[in-house]
Amino acid sequence: MSHARFMQAALEQARIGYAEGGVPIGCVLVKDDAIVGAGHNRRVQQNSAIRHGEMDALEATGRKPGAWYKDITLYTTLSPCAMCTGAILLYGIPQVVIGENASFMGEEAHLASRGVTVTVLDDADCRDLMTAFMRNAPELWHEDIGL
Amino acid sequence: MSHARFMQAALEQARIGYAEGGVPIGCVLVKDDAIVGAGHNRRVQQNSAIRHGEMDALEATGRKPGAWYKDITLYTTLSPCAMCTGAILLYGIPQVVIGENASFMGEEAHLASRGVTVTVLDDADCRDLMTAFMRNAPELWHEDIGL
Repeated sequence: MSHARFMQAALEQARIGYAEGGVPIGCVLVKDDAIVGAGHNRRVQQNSAIRHGEMDALEATGRKPGAWYKDITLYTTLSPCAMCTGAILLYGIPQVVIGENASFMGEEAHLASRGVTVTVLDDADCRDLMTAFMRNAPELWHEDIGL
Repeated sequence: MSHARFMQAALEQARIGYAEGGVPIGCVLVKDDAIVGAGHNRRVQQNSAIRHGEMDALEATGRKPGAWYKDITLYTTLSPCAMCTGAILLYGIPQVVIGENASFMGEEAHLASRGVTVTVLDDADCRDLMTAFMRNAPELWHEDIGL
């Protein structure tokens, strides 16, 4: 499995969101070396309190039996917040690959404490996109993380 | 503030969901002694992986600044799962009132460890509704909690 290829797909989702005027965070779900779900933050686009990138990717796949999630790897451009962390734990997703956590440190320690394998790529493109967004739209960013 | 009155409203949401063929869990958000958001689980109704009762109530209120959540009391008929717990923590909702946790124990300890005040009413009507659902639709229930 190539982390770079799937993180590139998550980053492409983030860029789609940014071009829509939204928060540039993207996510893909990978199963058997193929993308089975993709999404990006739609707070602005859908006036949404819950459509973070990870949530949007989970919602894009619709209802699934619990067993479906148990070999998923979730790729997200940014370290997951408490809500997305909780969704990962609810469904028992075992592997999370994170683009970067320098601009925002999410609940990685909580994920790891519950047995999730967390990998941080420290990807410069993910970091640059998020840093530019935070500088350009600090109020929107704070809203997105409940501040 | 009357816990009974607001839990009754959450239970009414749960019953609406059950009548729709869905998972019977409801939620209301209360601010200044008034209901400002209401929702119920829509897994079945919207083919949704993320529309638990608490998430649906948060989504019903749309985008809000972070400060808006800081005096909310969230009423839910059932102990909150990991995802809904994470959403409560993301937005810094300080008070959670739970109908019952006998049929399902959620992440109450994690909420409390992060400083959220958790009150469990042990409401017989909430318990009876959930127990009947679990007996009638065990596969749907298991799916809803990722099993």
